[in-house]
Amino acid sequence: MTALEQMGKNAKAAARRLAAAGVRKDKALLAMAQAIESGENEILSANAKDLKNAKESGMNEALLDRLTLNPGRIAGMAQGIRSVAAQSDPIGTVIGGGVRPNGLKIQHIRVPLGVIGIIYEARPNVTADAAALCLKAGNAVILRGGKEAISSNTCVAEIMRTAIEQAGLPKDSIQLVADTNRSSSVEMMQLTDYIDVLIPRGGKGLIQSVVQNSRVPVIETGSGNCHVYVDADADIDMAANIVFNAKTSRPSVCNAIETVLVHKDIAEQVLPAMKARLDEKQVELRGCERTRAILGDSVIPATEEDWATEYLDYIIAIKVVDNIDDAIEHIAKYSSGHSEAIITKSYESAQKFTAQVDSAAVYVNASTRFTDGGEFGMGAEIGISTQKLHARGPMGVNELTSTKFIINGSGQIR
Amino acid sequence: MTALEQMGKNAKAAARRLAAAGVRKDKALLAMAQAIESGENEILSANAKDLKNAKESGMNEALLDRLTLNPGRIAGMAQGIRSVAAQSDPIGTVIGGGVRPNGLKIQHIRVPLGVIGIIYEARPNVTADAAALCLKAGNAVILRGGKEAISSNTCVAEIMRTAIEQAGLPKDSIQLVADTNRSSSVEMMQLTDYIDVLIPRGGKGLIQSVVQNSRVPVIETGSGNCHVYVDADADIDMAANIVFNAKTSRPSVCNAIETVLVHKDIAEQVLPAMKARLDEKQVELRGCERTRAILGDSVIPATEEDWATEYLDYIIAIKVVDNIDDAIEHIAKYSSGHSEAIITKSYESAQKFTAQVDSAAVYVNASTRFTDGGEFGMGAEIGISTQKLHARGPMGVNELTSTKFIINGSGQIR
Repeated sequence: MTALEQMGKNAKAAARRLAAAGVRKDKALLAMAQAIESGENEILSANAKDLKNAKESGMNEALLDRLTLNPGRIAGMAQGIRSVAAQSDPIGTVIGGGVRPNGLKIQHIRVPLGVIGIIYEARPNVTADAAALCLKAGNAVILRGGKEAISSNTCVAEIMRTAIEQAGLPKDSIQLVADTNRSSSVEMMQLTDYIDVLIPRGGKGLIQSVVQNSRVPVIETGSGNCHVYVDADADIDMAANIVFNAKTSRPSVCNAIETVLVHKDIAEQVLPAMKARLDEKQVELRGCERTRAILGDSVIPATEEDWATEYLDYIIAIKVVDNIDDAIEHIAKYSSGHSEAIITKSYESAQKFTAQVDSAAVYVNASTRFTDGGEFGMGAEIGISTQKLHARGPMGVNELTSTKFIINGSGQIR
Repeated sequence: MTALEQMGKNAKAAARRLAAAGVRKDKALLAMAQAIESGENEILSANAKDLKNAKESGMNEALLDRLTLNPGRIAGMAQGIRSVAAQSDPIGTVIGGGVRPNGLKIQHIRVPLGVIGIIYEARPNVTADAAALCLKAGNAVILRGGKEAISSNTCVAEIMRTAIEQAGLPKDSIQLVADTNRSSSVEMMQLTDYIDVLIPRGGKGLIQSVVQNSRVPVIETGSGNCHVYVDADADIDMAANIVFNAKTSRPSVCNAIETVLVHKDIAEQVLPAMKARLDEKQVELRGCERTRAILGDSVIPATEEDWATEYLDYIIAIKVVDNIDDAIEHIAKYSSGHSEAIITKSYESAQKFTAQVDSAAVYVNASTRFTDGGEFGMGAEIGISTQKLHARGPMGVNELTSTKFIINGSGQIR
């Protein structure tokens, strides 16, 4: 039995106890939050080790920032765990059922998924977030973080394991894979006997590698080629304001937009207003011929590749379209199915866009940046699913559950 | 572009029209049912060709029976389609939502999955069943049946396609793969650009091959190593009756039981009563030592392998256990997570068993044979999921849907 198989076995055993743990899960979560706050110094010195190694290996500033913990971020981790504890427990919720003509009483109830594997990169706060959400839904979790954060992750995981055990639940509810070589994630992807679902969190490369190689069922998250379509009669200021927000408030995240589609009848008015806002942040514009005819040669000519690219940067593609149908067609062809918005005053356009655009979140007159578990009222999220099976869009605790049928009879046979 | 890629492309286009087809889907379904009845002679002569080939290649009686169509079975296919049409349309159903503090109005609604692939074996009635369920939920379907039934399947599919087109919906809502070589199912399993989910229907070999090789997300169906546990104070007659029904009413199906677990305190009374019933159908008994001590040497000694085997035949394994915990432990170790039942008069045992047994359907005092979409009130089923992701247990039209969020705003930015 390999180390990972042993972890899988321990996780299965822990998951069986968690399935019936009820309110003790919340006690364990509160204890975890408390322990993380008490362990601040310990966590900071573990994190300092990671940061030292990262600087020596020449990690860039953006990644260093993600890896860095400080007292504020540690308090945030604890607060995140408390907000998960405060949510209602999905386990045991009756979501359907009734009495059949033969007298069988059927209840369809929520149960935990079992054992969840999380493969992630260099953000140590994921260790606490993901563990808390999995635990709340009654699941054991096997965490496999990046090697850059191994010292921070190990420290946070050990603190949480101790707190769980003191709260009377199995410490193997949370386990961290010590081996951060590529082989350990490859082995996790084959561990169908022990892991019920794998959720990759991180960049496109990581996610695609897990989707393509895993035999354990995967929930695909996070890829977002998102669009705003400005309809013929949109409010010009609202359009410019939403495009500016959706592109620049945080360009590196999946719910930021990459392409704006503009109805030809409003292009001459809205494009200059939009450019004026985007220029505030020096956003690079790449446009179709009609866009360049209006905004001038400072706009770089857009290629086919631009429509398909998730820039995750201060770059935006702009296309003038003849009508809403062409906008919907463009989105169907290039979107990753994450989030799209229409800016319009037309009831008919709003109805058509929301009915025909097949993405996880479809907005009328609002920024795509709201696609987020917290913003949707889920309390916290484990990621944003861009697949159609099991869960789509932001995933909270409900999305970390399965269901079963309980049938009460009095001797019925068929 | 290969023939299958072209089919995938056609299916995607059809799926976009089906997503907004509303009540026209029901008109198309009723037209399909009518056309199948009118096409009886045509279908029977296509089926005769398949039967002739099958007999010449030496197909066994059981498989020949599955392949055979007759006027009654054709009427049954039409009736099945009508009962799917009569169900309520899941698409557009609002399953959650509300107003956020910033004024955003969120609706969480059901939408189709998109394009569903079905890989199945030699039962031509699946062609009609699966197509009707997928269409009802607004999905396009690509059917890939076994080579033994190709002539029947082609005939039924063409009749349905013509009927759909006459009802004003795209005929490519239903497509049948003409190539029945293994290579066509292998290609389907890689068609991630066009197929949203694959559902294999058939024997264990087929299902395992799809689960292991598919890059398209799969819903695993149909493997059932099911158990009845007879508790210390069970009603003897009820126990014998349910075990007899669950084993012998149709041993070849996934919701039939394979193993009986009996509490030691009731074994001396219940085992002879059970044996008397099972002897009526000459069921072969394979028991543990304690079972053999009670029932005698006519019971074959059970091995470790027996506990793990889905016989799908007139064979049953019997084990005497010390208590309910041992029964639950045995089920956790050997069950495929399909259906299990407890026979008991004890409130405490019923509560414990239904809470702790982690299977899709858990029964108290009823036969496991009820795990079925029709019996659960779903109208019809596409299969019985034995996985935990997306759907678990019998799958009806709701289980062939995904969801999306529609968000109505008034200029909100984040």
